[in-house]
Amino acid sequence: MTHTGIGPEYPTGSRPDAQAVPAAIAALAARFGNRLVTSRAVCEQHGHTTTWIANEPPDAVVFPQSTADVQEIVRICAARGVPIVPFGTGTSLEGQVNAPRGGVSIDLRDMNRVLDVNAEDLDCVVEPGVTRKQLNEHLRDQGVFFPLDPGADASLGGMAATRASGTNAVRYGTMKDCVLALKAVLANGEVLTTARRAKKSSAGYDLTRLLIGSEGTLGVITELTLRLSGIPEAIAGGVCPFPSLEAACNAVIATIQIGLPVARIELLDEVQVKACNAYSRLALREVPMLFVEFHGTEAAVAEQSERFGQIAAEFGGGPFEWTARAEDRTRLWQARHDAYWAAVALRPGAKPIVTDVCVPISRLAECIMATQADLVESRLVSPIVGHVGDGNFHLALMVDFGDADEVERAEALLGRLVERSLAFEGTCTGEHGVGQGKMKYIATELGGPAVAAMGAIKQALDPQGIMNPGKIVAGL
Amino acid sequence: MTHTGIGPEYPTGSRPDAQAVPAAIAALAARFGNRLVTSRAVCEQHGHTTTWIANEPPDAVVFPQSTADVQEIVRICAARGVPIVPFGTGTSLEGQVNAPRGGVSIDLRDMNRVLDVNAEDLDCVVEPGVTRKQLNEHLRDQGVFFPLDPGADASLGGMAATRASGTNAVRYGTMKDCVLALKAVLANGEVLTTARRAKKSSAGYDLTRLLIGSEGTLGVITELTLRLSGIPEAIAGGVCPFPSLEAACNAVIATIQIGLPVARIELLDEVQVKACNAYSRLALREVPMLFVEFHGTEAAVAEQSERFGQIAAEFGGGPFEWTARAEDRTRLWQARHDAYWAAVALRPGAKPIVTDVCVPISRLAECIMATQADLVESRLVSPIVGHVGDGNFHLALMVDFGDADEVERAEALLGRLVERSLAFEGTCTGEHGVGQGKMKYIATELGGPAVAAMGAIKQALDPQGIMNPGKIVAGL
Repeated sequence: MTHTGIGPEYPTGSRPDAQAVPAAIAALAARFGNRLVTSRAVCEQHGHTTTWIANEPPDAVVFPQSTADVQEIVRICAARGVPIVPFGTGTSLEGQVNAPRGGVSIDLRDMNRVLDVNAEDLDCVVEPGVTRKQLNEHLRDQGVFFPLDPGADASLGGMAATRASGTNAVRYGTMKDCVLALKAVLANGEVLTTARRAKKSSAGYDLTRLLIGSEGTLGVITELTLRLSGIPEAIAGGVCPFPSLEAACNAVIATIQIGLPVARIELLDEVQVKACNAYSRLALREVPMLFVEFHGTEAAVAEQSERFGQIAAEFGGGPFEWTARAEDRTRLWQARHDAYWAAVALRPGAKPIVTDVCVPISRLAECIMATQADLVESRLVSPIVGHVGDGNFHLALMVDFGDADEVERAEALLGRLVERSLAFEGTCTGEHGVGQGKMKYIATELGGPAVAAMGAIKQALDPQGIMNPGKIVAGL
Repeated sequence: MTHTGIGPEYPTGSRPDAQAVPAAIAALAARFGNRLVTSRAVCEQHGHTTTWIANEPPDAVVFPQSTADVQEIVRICAARGVPIVPFGTGTSLEGQVNAPRGGVSIDLRDMNRVLDVNAEDLDCVVEPGVTRKQLNEHLRDQGVFFPLDPGADASLGGMAATRASGTNAVRYGTMKDCVLALKAVLANGEVLTTARRAKKSSAGYDLTRLLIGSEGTLGVITELTLRLSGIPEAIAGGVCPFPSLEAACNAVIATIQIGLPVARIELLDEVQVKACNAYSRLALREVPMLFVEFHGTEAAVAEQSERFGQIAAEFGGGPFEWTARAEDRTRLWQARHDAYWAAVALRPGAKPIVTDVCVPISRLAECIMATQADLVESRLVSPIVGHVGDGNFHLALMVDFGDADEVERAEALLGRLVERSLAFEGTCTGEHGVGQGKMKYIATELGGPAVAAMGAIKQALDPQGIMNPGKIVAGL
C-alpha cells in the first residue's frame, strides 16, 4: 500500500496469488471484450475518491449491462479468489472504491435504466447506475420525486451501499428509509432478493437494511426498489442569520422538538457563509446561518415559515426571510450544494479532507463549538456545514499536503473530532460511511461484540473475503 | 409436537439430550431461586400466543432483572445446548414464544424500567419489558410520546423483536424506524451494542435493523433506545363511510399520493363495522368505513380534514365527520383497538385465526375484494381490518375448531391469501412476523438465496441453534 495522503492503518489481507488476477482478466476479456478495460488511467480513475485517501487502483475495470453480467463477473472472480469492488460514480468519501488487494472494479454506469415507476404506490425500480438527478428527471411529469440528495449526483446503488442521505433526511429519512427492496449478487454468484414491493413487511431478517450501508462487502446491488414522495404542492424556504452557532443550534432543537415538519434545516458557519458568498456570488451576512425549507400545502408552508421565524427570534436570530418563489430557492440551495467547491476555493493549492460525524441534537452546539475551537488551536481551516436537524455535521479541512506538520495536525484533529462525537453519544459517521478511513473507529464506537458480529456476518456471506475487501470489517 | 389447532409443518430440530434440560434448570435454580419457575401452568402460559398455533410450553420460565442476569441465563443454557425463548407479553400471533424443542423461556417482565428520557433529542432508553402504554404514561408530562400501537399493550422488546407497527405506522413508521439502538445478549453470552444515540449513522452493518424482526433467533434484546415524537399540538379525526370497499381503497390511494400527511387511516369492512357496533355500542352505518386522523397545528389538521373530506367525496364517500375533541376521538379509536374482541364476539364458541398480509397500495382494493369473495365461497366468517395507508390488512377468521372440515377450509383460505398477496407483489406478513406459522412462505416470497442468507446469518451468530429455535429459519 502506498499513500499520497493520510493512509488507513487497517490490515487489508493479502493479494490473490500471482496467477489468479491475469487468469480472471483473461476470462473476463473473453466474455466481455472491450467492456473490460485494464488501462492504467481507467484503473486509477476507479480507485479515486473525492477525498484524501490515496489511490489504490484495481487491476481491471469491467462494465456489466445486466444482473446476469454481474453474476458472471462475480463467478469468474470468485473461482480464482480475485477481489471485486463495486463502483458507482466514485463520489464516496472514505476510500470505499479503492482496491487495496487489487482485483476487478465493477463499474455499474451502464446499468442505468429506470425499470418501472409505480406512481400510485410511490415507488420505482431502478438499476444501480441511475443517478439521483437522472431519476428525478425521469419522474418529473409524474407528480413524484426521490428526495435524498447527497452533495454529488451519486448513483442510487452507491447511495444505498453507503447508506447516504443529505439535506432532506430530516424529513424523508436516509437510504435506510427510502429503499423498499434490493436485488444483489452475492459472493457465490446467486441473486438475492431482499424484499418485495409492499411498503412494510415483517417476513424474516431485514436483508434490505443489512445490505444498505454494507459498502459492497456483502454483495453487489443490481436493482433497487425505491420509495418515492409526492411532489409537495408548495415549498417555502429561506435563510436565517444567528448571532452565534449556539443560538442557531438551539433554534434547531426547538424547531425539531415542537414537531415543526421542516424538510431541510442546514447550518452554515461563518466560514462557510463567507466561502459561499465568494464562490456563489451571494451577499449573505457573514454570521452563522440556517437554510430552512418547508414542504406542504400553501397554507401549511406559510404557517410553518412564520412559526420558524418566531422560534429563531426567541434565540436572537432573524429576520427569517422566506419565499415560496422557486427561482430564489433554487439559487440558495445551489449555493448550499456547492458548499464543497466553495470550501475548496477558500484556500487555493490545498486539498480537502472531508469528514462527517453525528451526535444527539442536544449535544450539537457543544460539539460544533468545541470543534471550531479545536480548528483554531490546530491552526487549520475548515468550514462547518451541517444537516443539523439530524445532529449531523461536516468538515472540509483545507490541507496543504506538502506540509507534513499540517497533515499531522489535521490527522490529530480528525481523531479528536471522532472522540468528541463518541463522548457525546454520537457516531463516527452520520452519512459518509466507513470505507477504509473509519474502520479503526468501529470498535471504539460499538465495542468488540459488534465488530465480531459484523465479522461473523461477513464471513458467513463472503467466506473467501473477495467482496470489496479491506472496508468496514477487517479482511481475512 | 402436538397441536390442538393448525400446526406448523416446519422441522424444528431435535430436543437437547435428556440430561441437559434438568442440568440447566438446576443451575438456573441455584442462581435465580424462586425467579425460576417450572410449574406446568406457568410453562403453558408462556407457550401461549393470541392465536391458533398449538401450545408448546418450555420446560421452565426464568425472570431476569438485568442484562447481566440474561447473560448468565444464556451462558447456563448455551453450555448445555438448551434452547432459550424470549418472552414479552405473549401477544405475538404466529407462535413466536412456543418452545418446540423445550428449553427455557426468558420472561422479561421484571426488566421494565424506563432508564432515560431525552426529550430534547426525542429519544428514550428502556428495558425490554416496558410496555407501550407504560412508556406513554411515563412520558405524559414531557411533551413527547411513542407513537406505535399494535392492538395489544405489548412489551417494547417484543415489538422490536417482531418488527411490530400498528395504526400510526403510515405516519411514524414501524419498529424498524422507531428504534435507534439496541443492546442484546448474543448466543455466546456477550452483550451486543448495535448503535448509539445519534439519529442517523452509517458506521458499518445495520445490526439494529438485523435484530428488529429477528424474533429472538439472533439474540435477546435487553435494552432499547427509542425514537419519540413531539405530541402534536392538535389532533383531528373521524369516520368516513364509503359505498364500497373499492371506493374506500381508492380514496386511500389518492390521499397518500397527494401527500396528505395522514397519521392514521384505517379500513373496517362492513362485517367489522357491524361487529364494532355490537361490541363497542356504536351506531355506525354498516358499510365500509375509513377511520382517519391528522396530527399537526390546529390550522393544519383542519385544512387536512377538509381536504380528506373532498377526496372521499370524489370517490362517493362521506360525509367525513371529523372532530378535534379528544373525548370523541378516544371512543372511536378504542373501538378500533377492540376490533379483535369485537370479532371474537361475532361468533361465540369459535376461536380466531388472526393473520395479516401487505400489498402495494395500488393492489389493495383488488386483493381485499378477492379475499372477501374467497371468504364467501369458503363459507367462513372474518371481518377485514386494515392499516390501509400501508397496504396492510388483517383477517380474524372465526373458526369452530371442532369442525374438521371448517378447519381445513380455513387453512386452505390462509394459503390462498398469502399466494394472492405474493401475486400482487406483496408480503406474507406486514407486521405480525413469521414465527412458526409463516416459515413455509419465506422461500416462496423471497426465494432460495434469501432463505440461505438468513440461514447463514443465523448459523454465524448462533452456531448451536439455541436461540428461539424453529422460528423464521429452519433449525439445525
